[in-house]
Amino acid sequence: MGKTILYSFWKSSSAWRVRIALNLKEIPYEIIPVSLVRDGGEQHEENFKKINPMEQVPALHIDEVTLVESLNIMHYLEETRPQKPIMPKDIIQRAKVREISEIIASGMQPYQNLSALKKIPKEQQKDWASYFITRGFNAVEKLLSANSGKYCVGDEITIADCCLVPQVFHAMVRFNVDLQRYPNILRIDQGLNEHPAFRVAHPDSQPDCPAKN
Amino acid sequence: MGKTILYSFWKSSSAWRVRIALNLKEIPYEIIPVSLVRDGGEQHEENFKKINPMEQVPALHIDEVTLVESLNIMHYLEETRPQKPIMPKDIIQRAKVREISEIIASGMQPYQNLSALKKIPKEQQKDWASYFITRGFNAVEKLLSANSGKYCVGDEITIADCCLVPQVFHAMVRFNVDLQRYPNILRIDQGLNEHPAFRVAHPDSQPDCPAKN
Repeated sequence: MGKTILYSFWKSSSAWRVRIALNLKEIPYEIIPVSLVRDGGEQHEENFKKINPMEQVPALHIDEVTLVESLNIMHYLEETRPQKPIMPKDIIQRAKVREISEIIASGMQPYQNLSALKKIPKEQQKDWASYFITRGFNAVEKLLSANSGKYCVGDEITIADCCLVPQVFHAMVRFNVDLQRYPNILRIDQGLNEHPAFRVAHPDSQPDCPAKN
Repeated sequence: MGKTILYSFWKSSSAWRVRIALNLKEIPYEIIPVSLVRDGGEQHEENFKKINPMEQVPALHIDEVTLVESLNIMHYLEETRPQKPIMPKDIIQRAKVREISEIIASGMQPYQNLSALKKIPKEQQKDWASYFITRGFNAVEKLLSANSGKYCVGDEITIADCCLVPQVFHAMVRFNVDLQRYPNILRIDQGLNEHPAFRVAHPDSQPDCPAKN
């Protein structure tokens, strides 16, 4: 088997989800950074289009295949490497994990990524993103108040947690959304951020993160 | 076990996906229509917020629980009712199904749904939607040219097909996107539209579809 290679960008929340999952499962991987901003975006270069026809990160080369789309990749890791599980066994709990993950991946993140924001006038971007973040987190907070334990669903870390942490970061740091009205989201996020798998996956720890002065 | 109830809107492509999956699996269900347009949208009413905190369709009440998010619901149906499968057994094929489904559910549909379009000026809506449809279908067509058989992935109908048909319809009928450059998408869509499970799920066959004169 060849090396596992993650095409990643330090700030991408979708790539970040996959970095957390790889770390949780202790799968060694090499990062090839793809800058979404340099020269109009390296994701649009001909060579990269062959790796991910959606022209975005992440893409994961593993087991001699290349996979795209972050939820898909995490479920593939779970199906091929069930040790150190990131999905519950219970069928209702599994659905609860997928619900939170899908709300974040389809109902929140698409509105905040570069390709959408590029098409919104600059002075409207914050309001636009805040609207969808608030709608999504209102729903996530309600689901967490029903199903969460130490983490999003019960007391074990799952794919939902891999989605939550990058979304909280972007809401706070990029869009200054006030999260005080989401006590469960904040509590779970704070706990997760202390976990080594999450710390190592953080944008600031990435090889392509610009040096801070 | 109580009745299975689908909260649906005839034009919603996410509800349409679930209608197809329920039909494919021959699960009897009752539809409760939720008008996304009447009186500002019934999905925002207090009673419905308790059913789906994202204030959108679909929601499925089944096995005494209520589930939201369409991909999640389809995977739940597959996990609880593996007969008449809508996912392949092969682990790489499963990833290929999830890839196409996720591109449509996270990379295309969020930009065309009512909640996004409402925030885009009317005269820009068609260009906005066409941009994301074209980007998504460029990627889907490439994946289909590598992996499709009679259907999106191989020769059996999967969750990817449940996502494809509503997306093709919205691209053609609502946004007039020219799909001639996507021969695999058109071929597969045409085949699927003849299938009874897809015909019965079509917006025109829904109880809440306005009568045509």
